[in-house]
Amino acid sequence: MIIVMKPRTKQEEIERIRVRLSQLGCEVRDIKGLNYHIFGLIGNTNLVDPDRLLANEGVEKVIHVQEPYKIANRLFQPEDTIVDIEGQKIGGENFAVIAGPCSVESEEQITGIAQAVKAAGAGLLRGGAFKPRTSPYSFQGLGEDGLDLLKIAKEKTGLPIVSELMSVEHLPRFCQDVDIIQIGARNMQNYELLKAVGQIRKPVILKRGLSSTIEELLLAAEYILAQGNDQVILCERGIRTFEHFTRNTLDLSAIPVIKKLSHLPVIVDPSHAGGIWWLVEPLAKAALVVGADGVMIEVHNDPVNAKCDGQQSLKPDKFASLMDSLKDLAQIQGKKI
Amino acid sequence: MIIVMKPRTKQEEIERIRVRLSQLGCEVRDIKGLNYHIFGLIGNTNLVDPDRLLANEGVEKVIHVQEPYKIANRLFQPEDTIVDIEGQKIGGENFAVIAGPCSVESEEQITGIAQAVKAAGAGLLRGGAFKPRTSPYSFQGLGEDGLDLLKIAKEKTGLPIVSELMSVEHLPRFCQDVDIIQIGARNMQNYELLKAVGQIRKPVILKRGLSSTIEELLLAAEYILAQGNDQVILCERGIRTFEHFTRNTLDLSAIPVIKKLSHLPVIVDPSHAGGIWWLVEPLAKAALVVGADGVMIEVHNDPVNAKCDGQQSLKPDKFASLMDSLKDLAQIQGKKI
Amino acid sequence: MIIVMKPRTKQEEIERIRVRLSQLGCEVRDIKGLNYHIFGLIGNTNLVDPDRLLANEGVEKVIHVQEPYKIANRLFQPEDTIVDIEGQKIGGENFAVIAGPCSVESEEQITGIAQAVKAAGAGLLRGGAFKPRTSPYSFQGLGEDGLDLLKIAKEKTGLPIVSELMSVEHLPRFCQDVDIIQIGARNMQNYELLKAVGQIRKPVILKRGLSSTIEELLLAAEYILAQGNDQVILCERGIRTFEHFTRNTLDLSAIPVIKKLSHLPVIVDPSHAGGIWWLVEPLAKAALVVGADGVMIEVHNDPVNAKCDGQQSLKPDKFASLMDSLKDLAQIQGKKI
Amino acid sequence: MIIVMKPRTKQEEIERIRVRLSQLGCEVRDIKGLNYHIFGLIGNTNLVDPDRLLANEGVEKVIHVQEPYKIANRLFQPEDTIVDIEGQKIGGENFAVIAGPCSVESEEQITGIAQAVKAAGAGLLRGGAFKPRTSPYSFQGLGEDGLDLLKIAKEKTGLPIVSELMSVEHLPRFCQDVDIIQIGARNMQNYELLKAVGQIRKPVILKRGLSSTIEELLLAAEYILAQGNDQVILCERGIRTFEHFTRNTLDLSAIPVIKKLSHLPVIVDPSHAGGIWWLVEPLAKAALVVGADGVMIEVHNDPVNAKCDGQQSLKPDKFASLMDSLKDLAQIQGKKI
Repeated sequence: MIIVMKPRTKQEEIERIRVRLSQLGCEVRDIKGLNYHIFGLIGNTNLVDPDRLLANEGVEKVIHVQEPYKIANRLFQPEDTIVDIEGQKIGGENFAVIAGPCSVESEEQITGIAQAVKAAGAGLLRGGAFKPRTSPYSFQGLGEDGLDLLKIAKEKTGLPIVSELMSVEHLPRFCQDVDIIQIGARNMQNYELLKAVGQIRKPVILKRGLSSTIEELLLAAEYILAQGNDQVILCERGIRTFEHFTRNTLDLSAIPVIKKLSHLPVIVDPSHAGGIWWLVEPLAKAALVVGADGVMIEVHNDPVNAKCDGQQSLKPDKFASLMDSLKDLAQIQGKKI
Repeated sequence: MIIVMKPRTKQEEIERIRVRLSQLGCEVRDIKGLNYHIFGLIGNTNLVDPDRLLANEGVEKVIHVQEPYKIANRLFQPEDTIVDIEGQKIGGENFAVIAGPCSVESEEQITGIAQAVKAAGAGLLRGGAFKPRTSPYSFQGLGEDGLDLLKIAKEKTGLPIVSELMSVEHLPRFCQDVDIIQIGARNMQNYELLKAVGQIRKPVILKRGLSSTIEELLLAAEYILAQGNDQVILCERGIRTFEHFTRNTLDLSAIPVIKKLSHLPVIVDPSHAGGIWWLVEPLAKAALVVGADGVMIEVHNDPVNAKCDGQQSLKPDKFASLMDSLKDLAQIQGKKI
Repeated sequence: MIIVMKPRTKQEEIERIRVRLSQLGCEVRDIKGLNYHIFGLIGNTNLVDPDRLLANEGVEKVIHVQEPYKIANRLFQPEDTIVDIEGQKIGGENFAVIAGPCSVESEEQITGIAQAVKAAGAGLLRGGAFKPRTSPYSFQGLGEDGLDLLKIAKEKTGLPIVSELMSVEHLPRFCQDVDIIQIGARNMQNYELLKAVGQIRKPVILKRGLSSTIEELLLAAEYILAQGNDQVILCERGIRTFEHFTRNTLDLSAIPVIKKLSHLPVIVDPSHAGGIWWLVEPLAKAALVVGADGVMIEVHNDPVNAKCDGQQSLKPDKFASLMDSLKDLAQIQGKKI
Repeated sequence: MIIVMKPRTKQEEIERIRVRLSQLGCEVRDIKGLNYHIFGLIGNTNLVDPDRLLANEGVEKVIHVQEPYKIANRLFQPEDTIVDIEGQKIGGENFAVIAGPCSVESEEQITGIAQAVKAAGAGLLRGGAFKPRTSPYSFQGLGEDGLDLLKIAKEKTGLPIVSELMSVEHLPRFCQDVDIIQIGARNMQNYELLKAVGQIRKPVILKRGLSSTIEELLLAAEYILAQGNDQVILCERGIRTFEHFTRNTLDLSAIPVIKKLSHLPVIVDPSHAGGIWWLVEPLAKAALVVGADGVMIEVHNDPVNAKCDGQQSLKPDKFASLMDSLKDLAQIQGKKI
């Protein structure tokens, strides 16, 4: 950790800070420049609170050298984490395809879509039972009934189930019937929820918040990891920018960056990122070649009657043709699909 | 609601959409331009889902004319909502000052600060018991013990208590001991939490999310209002932009915009917005003249030893001098402080 | 064009606006809703200034239905524009690779790099002679001498030259010695420069501004097109967001969106977008599969001694291996490289 | 300057970098941490190019301690710069009010508005002759004729003239007839233009770019200052964010930040920031209390017929009432208006 003192700080204030720093249990080194006095802190700086240092008037900046996340950090675990869900692997050389409707609507709908995406080659089924909607007047999902229907779809197809958890209260039910618990973008910093899923032993998909940095995403993952659950899958789903033709701006450069910083698998959700069905194919292909460990894609048999996100859902035949393209690209990239 | 069809859409597709629209229980009007066929929907368009319309290939855009929030809308309630907390009023001609530490640390600390801010003229005491922190390794607050200490501070000063709720599980305790429940920026779209505080009858301060539009803030408020709790106070606390000298970018233009769109009171948190103590005074003053109904300010007796946010906390004497400036400005603005 | 009147506007004001609208030479249609009176304008709305309408107190919003750009609009020219530079084609089924150093430094440097990128398969040579630098104290390029050196490199390799123009004053020299004139991101809305390159008959690469929407990029292109120069190539090079690990956030979804809205070719600059050499390969590959018409890549024989942007430049051997990957992907995508 | 080496970099690479650094003419200091080796560079680091250091694979980060701007830096000039335009002062204890129409339209219009704003207390007249417009089909200003009309308005009122320069070619005419040359937001990084106005001896208003950081604004000012023109006035006019109710998001916290970092005067343009006339008054008042050295306000006698920006222009009577409010606030703030 580097502490930069304000220019023209009095020598006695510099000494006062030096004493404070040395009480933190770290070694202190000095660099005296023309205008700035700089301290370098060596040792375990985890317990040093930069805010507290910044509250000293003489301190200009505090600069982290070490990343603030530990368990998620590739520095301390060089090999890729691979999550295994009933034989479906996410991470390493695998490219996972999770597909299904935005929300579960009926038994016929969910089993029909499950069968279609399985036939096309998807490895996991997504389906929302509890839906986070911007407006309280929008369809909020079938709730527990939706989970019942997902269970039936799994029985018929064998596809493991991914579904979004919005409240600690529903966690026991999710532990029983859902194979991967999804934490949505809006709940990325809902720390009570993160701690709760950290205490279970099920894989968790953690979506990047709309205005979250990569570092914050990794710190949110760290909340889960620190509770002992090491099966965390990150998901890039678009960030908010000034561009409004697309729903969000998919940050594909985040994928190689995350792979560099962390050993956790990272997938891409091109459906929510673009918000338009004809953007899903190009963005899914780009996700593969940029190094993602999978994609999560909205598929609906009847988009114009879908209860949500119809405009960004692929029909089963378009999904099947996307799968073909992905398989071709996977071969070139040396990925198993 | 306006539906714009894609240029060169076939007549039969236009007719198909017209039939769909007329089944929604609204009147349909046509405007046929050179390149575009446009439908206007008249009547109660609340039940019309724009996503479903957009899922039709012939539909280019769906444009809302009416705002999607109803109860929060000034159109349907022209007069200001005024929230009364044991005689402290927020809204209308009042300018409320809420002050206190980022987090409660000890009885001595919280009662000391409470007495100091009361002496300077603050009307309510803020103090965090449960703290949302970016890193799992940062101080997470004293939890329920913090609420006990806030209760003592209230007994000694009479100041009503504002504290942040992070989980539905703690709601009963908050209902008992806290006077205004704060929903933090990171939980602005934690809909389960919003619905829960909608069912109680206590005032709620709802902070704008870091990347939320004004419309989304009002829709989040609508989640609370729709459950029957009409005591919602909005709070602007800075949004995330590319500028990184300040922690966030305080969006002061949001204040007059919100006053135009909604009857709900809106306050400003200059401490979190700027993230630096010397920005608090100018931003608090700007909040007053721009028309805010109050400010929420971090005050700490010993910032360099504060357990969080020390760098953005005012010392009691600087807070007192800020109060003097605010009183002068309030007089000019015709606001009661 | 749709004009929405404020709720509760008096009938006489509505009539006044109707009269104004009918004087604009367009047909006026009415849609009267519960709260809102709406006008639809039919005909040539090019001459209607929305700002002037919005200046009427009774007018709430003005909504464009037709895109504001005409010549760049695919609606009026469905087939792709293909730009031909001495046999090197950009647009259509071609995937163009433009490579070279950030700035020209010496004859040896630029000819060496030109030979290397040609050997690897690049079709055009980029090299900066005039450099836009954030700081006035940074290296500003060799200026006209740099153009001389580019000319020598072209003589030796036959590669057409791409170089950035920063000032109208240098245009005559660029017309003589440069094959594609680049307008940088910072000058995307330097309208005097746009008009000037609109009056010549050389291809222009127009880079998207750091905070420009896709619509603004197309309007900037329209400035050039409206002067009669129809050889405009758009370039996505990253937009500014809150994420700061990468220099900018590459908006790859902009590529399929631009292809939908416009017939102009669009290429990607992965070097400036990410700002780090190891991001160039994945982002260039993603650019290809997402549908871009080419990439522009910084290559330097000795990045650690490069006078600018060394950290984002590929060495020739890494560039050659990227070319191999691009060729494989191009084959799958049905693109000629 | 701080150079952080990648974890696990080999000792010989560390030594290689140390040698490179010592060749730069600076002293080199070492801090060796658990995972990171850090170098501190002492002395004149102006000539050290961080990009070149980052191009070394072993280098992880380069951190600036000293701000990259020199002449604009308050560290080297603690006292405020005060610009004097024929007796009208900007900077120090003065609060300057610049008012006038977006664009000059006719002699009657500009002299009428000039007389009205003078009567209300404005000290300078703004008026656009050359207009940067997003669309090539919008009104582009009267050009040189506009400057003629501004000259007449100055003769009649004595108000010094502020007008925007878009091209080096027009500089001689501006030097003759304009008192303050404005560089617009879109040209903030048009370095050729900045250098050109750096070589004259007239005051320059430099507007912050839509996506520029405060540091970049100060570096753009440095381009002008480095050429010898020390009369630079900065202008905050809103930055681009995801919020779209307002045209831009006015960053009022930038004002106290700039005052801290630089001695240059800084004014606020509330008209362009909000883009709506009823936001001008609250934002102008906020600008004053937050510490700005002035405001620039669009005033038009007939907004509904204005050739541009009518929706954000104040009528003369509303401007007069704003002046009254500003005078009251200036008194409290100890500013001369």
